[in-house]
Amino acid sequence: MTKITNLITEVDNSMKFILVGSTHPGNIGASARALKNMGFNKIELVNPKAFPDDRAFYRAKAAKDILEKTKIYTNLKEAVKDCHLVIGTSARYRTVPWPVITAKEAAYDILHCIKEREASVAVVFGREDRGLTNEELSLCNVHVTIETDPGYSSLNLSQAVQIMAYEIRQQTLSFLNSSFSQTWDVPLADSQETEMLITHFDEIMKEVEFYDTENPRKLLTRVRRFFKRSKIDHMEANIFRGLFAAIQKKLRNIS
Amino acid sequence: MTKITNLITEVDNSMKFILVGSTHPGNIGASARALKNMGFNKIELVNPKAFPDDRAFYRAKAAKDILEKTKIYTNLKEAVKDCHLVIGTSARYRTVPWPVITAKEAAYDILHCIKEREASVAVVFGREDRGLTNEELSLCNVHVTIETDPGYSSLNLSQAVQIMAYEIRQQTLSFLNSSFSQTWDVPLADSQETEMLITHFDEIMKEVEFYDTENPRKLLTRVRRFFKRSKIDHMEANIFRGLFAAIQKKLRNIS
Repeated sequence: MTKITNLITEVDNSMKFILVGSTHPGNIGASARALKNMGFNKIELVNPKAFPDDRAFYRAKAAKDILEKTKIYTNLKEAVKDCHLVIGTSARYRTVPWPVITAKEAAYDILHCIKEREASVAVVFGREDRGLTNEELSLCNVHVTIETDPGYSSLNLSQAVQIMAYEIRQQTLSFLNSSFSQTWDVPLADSQETEMLITHFDEIMKEVEFYDTENPRKLLTRVRRFFKRSKIDHMEANIFRGLFAAIQKKLRNIS
Repeated sequence: MTKITNLITEVDNSMKFILVGSTHPGNIGASARALKNMGFNKIELVNPKAFPDDRAFYRAKAAKDILEKTKIYTNLKEAVKDCHLVIGTSARYRTVPWPVITAKEAAYDILHCIKEREASVAVVFGREDRGLTNEELSLCNVHVTIETDPGYSSLNLSQAVQIMAYEIRQQTLSFLNSSFSQTWDVPLADSQETEMLITHFDEIMKEVEFYDTENPRKLLTRVRRFFKRSKIDHMEANIFRGLFAAIQKKLRNIS
């Protein structure tokens, strides 16, 4: 029992669920309840249309406490900066394909990263009508699409939250029965480190005029996708950045 | 693709989701949407507090069509009489333990019964505040409890519907990848047949004064539980009933 409680608490402590630009406060409340039902206690909001709002607290029922202590951000980048694994939910296909996994696969990934890599994890949900923007999706390591009927794939926001939270709890319970124990020696890079690495990469590409002048953004998107999905660790990110710094220093000394 | 479509259609055609005594019409609408998102099209109501109601249709979004064709019953027994497998959702433990399985196990059971036994299946959800009565639960073959945090296990009705529908769809997709193909030779007994069998058993017990006079109801509950969980088929049920009839005829000839 203690072992179960410990892992469940560890997963809860390592996770947050972020709602971006939610329009209906009722959905925020229903999402808080859905999370608490599955043993989660951290919900954060980015630019909610109406919050605080009585309708949110009404729908939260016994999960009012987790709404009361929510944090509100003005942009997703700030909200995820200390996270090592950021999972974005998306029903749509995008112009540049990102790694897309199922809810079950995402839950496995989350458990693995928390248990073996001591990762902080965020699961991000977009606006009711338009989901996450391409820019927001590009802040994520991986995208998850909940398997629905292709004829009617538009899940209510709180239902999507419920399914993700349910799958993570299911996976937590199944990890308790597995003997998975390999641990990595270095923590994962967090979002802020990865962003700085990508920015640094961008600088270097500019400095060496590496860009395809026809379509410079697309190239950076591919770089971004590579680093985001690579599960790069803290030390590896430092090696890249150290190398880039050395390159820059060299270039500036020459010019 | 045709194979996928066929199995999904077969599962949809073989299933209905029944809401008993729902208090909030919004939950009925949200449940209809949750079902349609997962490819299901049949929702039925037993004694809804307020239906039809605009709030139900508003929350149903693009699933209004399945609400428009819903059937309304005055009791659950009538609603499930032609079903071979009736699954009752319950968060509570009851005085007489019934077989209790998880949502995932229930989904497996449902797929198996539809695919190998051509069963008609009902998944039954109770009132928001009190769930299903003991009498309603005793009409079910098996009870399912969705795994939640024990500290806050009260799921919103439409969230419970969403999780069950999601698990059944997941199981459908995984059956498509399995080579499960053993088929049974006889269809399952439907609920009405099983009820008649239990009634017949009760008569026989009375006729032979088999009852524990201290606690007669408890004994029948155990008999009921046995038949409900046994997945008895049509032919087996007929064998029992034929035997009981023969016993009764014999007893009456003697007395």
